[in-house]
Amino acid sequence: MDVTASGLAAAAALMTRLLTARTLHPAHAGALLRADDTGLHLLATDGEVTVHLRVPATVHTPGEVIVPRRGLADTLTALDPADARLTVQGGRLAIRVPGARFALPSLPDAVPPAADLPPLLGSVPGEVLRAAAVPVAGAASREHALPMFTGVRLRTHADALTLFATDRFRLATAAIPWQPAPPDSAGRGAASTSRVEALIPAAVLTRAAQHLGRVTTVHIHADDDLFALSWDGGSIITATIGGGYPDAQLSRLLDVTAVCTVEVDADTLAQAVDRAATYGGPHGRVTLQPIEGALLIRAEDPLTGESEQTIKATVDGSPTTRSFQARLLTDALRAFPRHPVQLRFQEAMRATAVTATAPSSPDLHYLVVPLRTPPAP
Amino acid sequence: MDVTASGLAAAAALMTRLLTARTLHPAHAGALLRADDTGLHLLATDGEVTVHLRVPATVHTPGEVIVPRRGLADTLTALDPADARLTVQGGRLAIRVPGARFALPSLPDAVPPAADLPPLLGSVPGEVLRAAAVPVAGAASREHALPMFTGVRLRTHADALTLFATDRFRLATAAIPWQPAPPDSAGRGAASTSRVEALIPAAVLTRAAQHLGRVTTVHIHADDDLFALSWDGGSIITATIGGGYPDAQLSRLLDVTAVCTVEVDADTLAQAVDRAATYGGPHGRVTLQPIEGALLIRAEDPLTGESEQTIKATVDGSPTTRSFQARLLTDALRAFPRHPVQLRFQEAMRATAVTATAPSSPDLHYLVVPLRTPPAP
Repeated sequence: MDVTASGLAAAAALMTRLLTARTLHPAHAGALLRADDTGLHLLATDGEVTVHLRVPATVHTPGEVIVPRRGLADTLTALDPADARLTVQGGRLAIRVPGARFALPSLPDAVPPAADLPPLLGSVPGEVLRAAAVPVAGAASREHALPMFTGVRLRTHADALTLFATDRFRLATAAIPWQPAPPDSAGRGAASTSRVEALIPAAVLTRAAQHLGRVTTVHIHADDDLFALSWDGGSIITATIGGGYPDAQLSRLLDVTAVCTVEVDADTLAQAVDRAATYGGPHGRVTLQPIEGALLIRAEDPLTGESEQTIKATVDGSPTTRSFQARLLTDALRAFPRHPVQLRFQEAMRATAVTATAPSSPDLHYLVVPLRTPPAP
Repeated sequence: MDVTASGLAAAAALMTRLLTARTLHPAHAGALLRADDTGLHLLATDGEVTVHLRVPATVHTPGEVIVPRRGLADTLTALDPADARLTVQGGRLAIRVPGARFALPSLPDAVPPAADLPPLLGSVPGEVLRAAAVPVAGAASREHALPMFTGVRLRTHADALTLFATDRFRLATAAIPWQPAPPDSAGRGAASTSRVEALIPAAVLTRAAQHLGRVTTVHIHADDDLFALSWDGGSIITATIGGGYPDAQLSRLLDVTAVCTVEVDADTLAQAVDRAATYGGPHGRVTLQPIEGALLIRAEDPLTGESEQTIKATVDGSPTTRSFQARLLTDALRAFPRHPVQLRFQEAMRATAVTATAPSSPDLHYLVVPLRTPPAP
């Protein structure tokens, strides 16, 4: 292999971002570099996710080599060369840039799995995917004891792709435009079989979506076990989370009946809730109380003291006091930066809905389960 | 107590920065607020350091109260109010700003020690103190098993204050202009008794110096057990590290006899050493080899591969190869940002000196002990 490649540093940095940073299993320590008539390909896995990136290159001699991916990434990102010459010599990969030469040993046993994509089902705009996936995935659980709640549910309905995640204490969902693949593109006859219905790890989707905001069109591929996103220049493949998903039950939660509606600026309320959280005791309990033309944000704790803040709000319906875990409430509000939002309080212990006041894209819905209101002092 | 104060958020943030972030001992959890005819005073300790800050204020009723300092700091820094009204009511401190009210419980038992300063010995310019203290303190050890090496030695000689720190593997020193206090200012007769000779915790000096870069004049106070810095608006007091300090032996190390002198750009070399460190094995060993008009930076490790970089350099004397632990070398180079530096290699295992090529203020000297050079392959 002998190749001159540009843009290698960006590809190496992206490869590092898309894979987990956890300690490498020796079998996942390698990155495969392959030079062929389509350019230079980088392929690596962390055991959960397989990433394939293509870099424009002038190929002098085709070939391939497997080298330590951390060493490759550290060297390339620190150098950030305009062009680098990569040559396999004596079982090692030499990287040459003006004034410097690096040699990485080959790791013939750390072969990443082939990056064969499952069937193409359709596509979505990259920026909209990012704007929907990052806040929705934020509502998933980080507790691996509950695999179902660590995923983001993706489902297609006609011309929309719905993203859905919950950790049981809050729930977020968004719908984005969906362009199904032509029926024959996956070698199958009917568009009805190209529906997406997958549960994918929230952390993987977040990492991928952050990059894909810069990509015009993202293709979605899936079969029963694998889910993949591909774009011009690369792809990321992950195993789906198995088991059923209670789509119907969870969707019913989105059927909100408000007893009181409050419109406020999301950032102003998030800042007030943050300040109140200091006074909210070990669980950061804050209480929202709508009053005439304003929302009171209260918190108190025998050890830390008490806090009472007032922010401008439009209140409709019968004023209803609700308490929340501050972090869940601010997570919901931060999904609507620089937006006025509508809080819809429901009866008793039913979840409070947070949505943008004006129609927005993606159309994001957040539900937060309230805490039991403390008895009046 | 009833007082209207401005600039409280900045004072609370500074109080938090000057004290350690470690978990609070209950006896150190309080901040004393005192309103008198000189303004509003904040006083707090973390057990090692005592901080006293004065805030301009309109005092309606003098008085004092002790409240949880973390709650006070979190609330004030998150609010960043132009003006806040502080009132003691029913044993609690109420903080009022437009639209919000906070109440902190009083902690009558968490009394911080009085901030009585040891005698004033002299003063230094704040920005020069910061520029000298931060890089010198960086050369001190973080291992508390060796208290002597966790300190920065401060000594006065005529019109200079010398700062000195070493962890035995590297050593840094700087001299800055010193203005002794008039003999009578500390109530003593002879200027000779107002010499500084103190060993103070490097971490405390670093935290204080970072703030003091914005202060015109910093006053230095010391007695046998305490060391303090004061400025217009506040002071910080710390216990000194006891025991003797081998001033004479360490000063002799600064007597450098170069066998080879290399002039390079500090940032360029630091970046090259960082890249090489990836290839330097578990201890990040990098080798510097002066050649005609250039410096070779090499590193190699059977697992990670090898690296060879060349940067422009002016070489004088007999070319001499030296190996270093990368982190110690980059720490030294980063003390000279945007400067050409001179590396002076000495005989055998004697330390390599790093200094700015041109005279600079503060006049900073860094020594790094080389590693044993690996046998030629």
